[in-house]
Amino acid sequence: MSQLNSLLNITKTKKSRLEEVDFDNLQFGKNYADHMMYCDYIDGEWQKPVIAPYGPMSFEPSVKVFHYGQAVFEGMKAFKDDHDDVWLFRPEDNLNRINISSKRMAIPEFPKEYFMESLKTLMQLDKDWVKKGQGNSLYIRPFAIATEPGVSASESNQYRFMIITCPAKAYYSKPVKVLIAQDYSRSADGGVGYAKAAGNYGAQFYPTKLAKEKGLDQIIWTDANTHQYMEEAGTMNIFFRINDKLLTAPTNDRILDGITRRSIIQLAKDEGLDVEIDRVEVKRIIDAAKAGELKEIFGAGTAATIVAVEGFEYDDTYYDLPEMKDSFGMHFKKRLQDIQYNRAEDPHNWRFKI
Amino acid sequence: MSQLNSLLNITKTKKSRLEEVDFDNLQFGKNYADHMMYCDYIDGEWQKPVIAPYGPMSFEPSVKVFHYGQAVFEGMKAFKDDHDDVWLFRPEDNLNRINISSKRMAIPEFPKEYFMESLKTLMQLDKDWVKKGQGNSLYIRPFAIATEPGVSASESNQYRFMIITCPAKAYYSKPVKVLIAQDYSRSADGGVGYAKAAGNYGAQFYPTKLAKEKGLDQIIWTDANTHQYMEEAGTMNIFFRINDKLLTAPTNDRILDGITRRSIIQLAKDEGLDVEIDRVEVKRIIDAAKAGELKEIFGAGTAATIVAVEGFEYDDTYYDLPEMKDSFGMHFKKRLQDIQYNRAEDPHNWRFKI
Repeated sequence: MSQLNSLLNITKTKKSRLEEVDFDNLQFGKNYADHMMYCDYIDGEWQKPVIAPYGPMSFEPSVKVFHYGQAVFEGMKAFKDDHDDVWLFRPEDNLNRINISSKRMAIPEFPKEYFMESLKTLMQLDKDWVKKGQGNSLYIRPFAIATEPGVSASESNQYRFMIITCPAKAYYSKPVKVLIAQDYSRSADGGVGYAKAAGNYGAQFYPTKLAKEKGLDQIIWTDANTHQYMEEAGTMNIFFRINDKLLTAPTNDRILDGITRRSIIQLAKDEGLDVEIDRVEVKRIIDAAKAGELKEIFGAGTAATIVAVEGFEYDDTYYDLPEMKDSFGMHFKKRLQDIQYNRAEDPHNWRFKI
Repeated sequence: MSQLNSLLNITKTKKSRLEEVDFDNLQFGKNYADHMMYCDYIDGEWQKPVIAPYGPMSFEPSVKVFHYGQAVFEGMKAFKDDHDDVWLFRPEDNLNRINISSKRMAIPEFPKEYFMESLKTLMQLDKDWVKKGQGNSLYIRPFAIATEPGVSASESNQYRFMIITCPAKAYYSKPVKVLIAQDYSRSADGGVGYAKAAGNYGAQFYPTKLAKEKGLDQIIWTDANTHQYMEEAGTMNIFFRINDKLLTAPTNDRILDGITRRSIIQLAKDEGLDVEIDRVEVKRIIDAAKAGELKEIFGAGTAATIVAVEGFEYDDTYYDLPEMKDSFGMHFKKRLQDIQYNRAEDPHNWRFKI
């Protein structure tokens, strides 16, 4: 069934797959909602975006994304409130960031009106995939890939921008144990660490696998030069609490400018909390842990919102973190989710109603 | 038409596309030979490899290679001698290297017998795509991509290993102008620079585009920490000649262990040349250029074999290199190609006959 829309070509699914999904036993990233958006960049411009039923697509084996990792992505979430209204959280920030990532990866920027109109249309068509209730959301994955066939090592002249969505429960429900990196590293000065470039993530899988073999869940990356400063956790920015001060690293060309990170910093400042945005020396954290002054560490990112760290390993020593009754992490998780689910005031206009 | 083979499932093309290709006006990476190999990793093992007509394949939009760049590749060439025999060059080195790359990218290693048997079969089926004559070759692109559908940021449990091939003339025929990097960088200590990981290449496109806007063709990357030491050119290792000494950087976790590089070092040592494999300080090269002692710079890689550098830019100053009558680069290019095309002795058994 096709439908006229001035900006998009829309073909609705003939039969929803919603009934096939076991929402009580969701595995993140395994079930996709009925519709997706794709938009091709050909002959120097983005063509009219297409909304179509989610499904496989045909690619030549020589398309550049397979060979050169010329690809970027974003992560967003849609939330449903008690009145069945669907909300996004700071969607224009995601558009801005994917365009920053794209620039670094030599991918053309994606137009704002295509992005926003596609999101709105997808959320309207698939609103039944957004479930009510704490922890439920529809995870939204915009991404762009190089689709020119051709194995010469240069930027593609064809791209496909897509948005796919999948229902999600809380991404990491349990507190995690992390390794503070001393051997491997995530990104270089002058590199692509600040971009959500596909290759930044694949490059972490092996060191993370090694960490998992030691019983740890994730890695906190340190600077590649000296391994003396905390950077980010690869899929999350990292916050440290020493006594009642909240610390996090400044963004730079190695660290992703996380939207959850930015939101927490804003909320913390609103509350008059002592927030220090400066390089976080590993030694300072170790010393604070030994002195009993390190109260908590938590990760912040769209998929997980906020994840408590229950302990970390450094220099083959494992440090337990205390269980805090007045956890900053849990406090900001609640504050963020109250805004996201339309349960609280939204002083900074972060919510976006579909 | 299917054919029995103990190791491979083979389906030959019904109609060759060979006649459609204009071999006098080849654009590298645009025409693919009739057959390709693919082999899926499912349930913890590589399935039986399939040889089939080259063509598009279907992928879900959520496959991990699109999102996380979990992908590696190799570059190889087949050469045809005057007796119509087809030769590969050190093919087991490519297998070893793709398995080193795969390990770093958490991709399972590919079995040697599958690799070698697939190469032999492809070269036999598509031998008419390997053209005789200096500079002609069939470029061979083995690669592996993460094919599990699912946007959670962890290693895939499904992969596809493929080999596609395309006829090639000399990759870079003209001498190139290069920029010595001072802002951007290619890889970090503890990162994936030594692997032929897809994302290493896409990350270079933007800085290279900026260099091209300044009239330069490529970038010689320097160490990300200090930008004081020469590393590699992204698709080539780099050699410097100061008077009659040949210099190149040692391989490390940021620099690809190039097979052409290794072959040149061996040939140079065979000839009793003074070869220094040590960190190459940028300042030393600039000083040598100013003193008239820098005789040449050349890049070495499979696609290009050897490419002469005609000049370089550093600190906004452009340095011309002299035209050498007794160029080391051109000497080793001839020596390598004489071995590759079966025109000379092969003392190290680098040639592999199909």
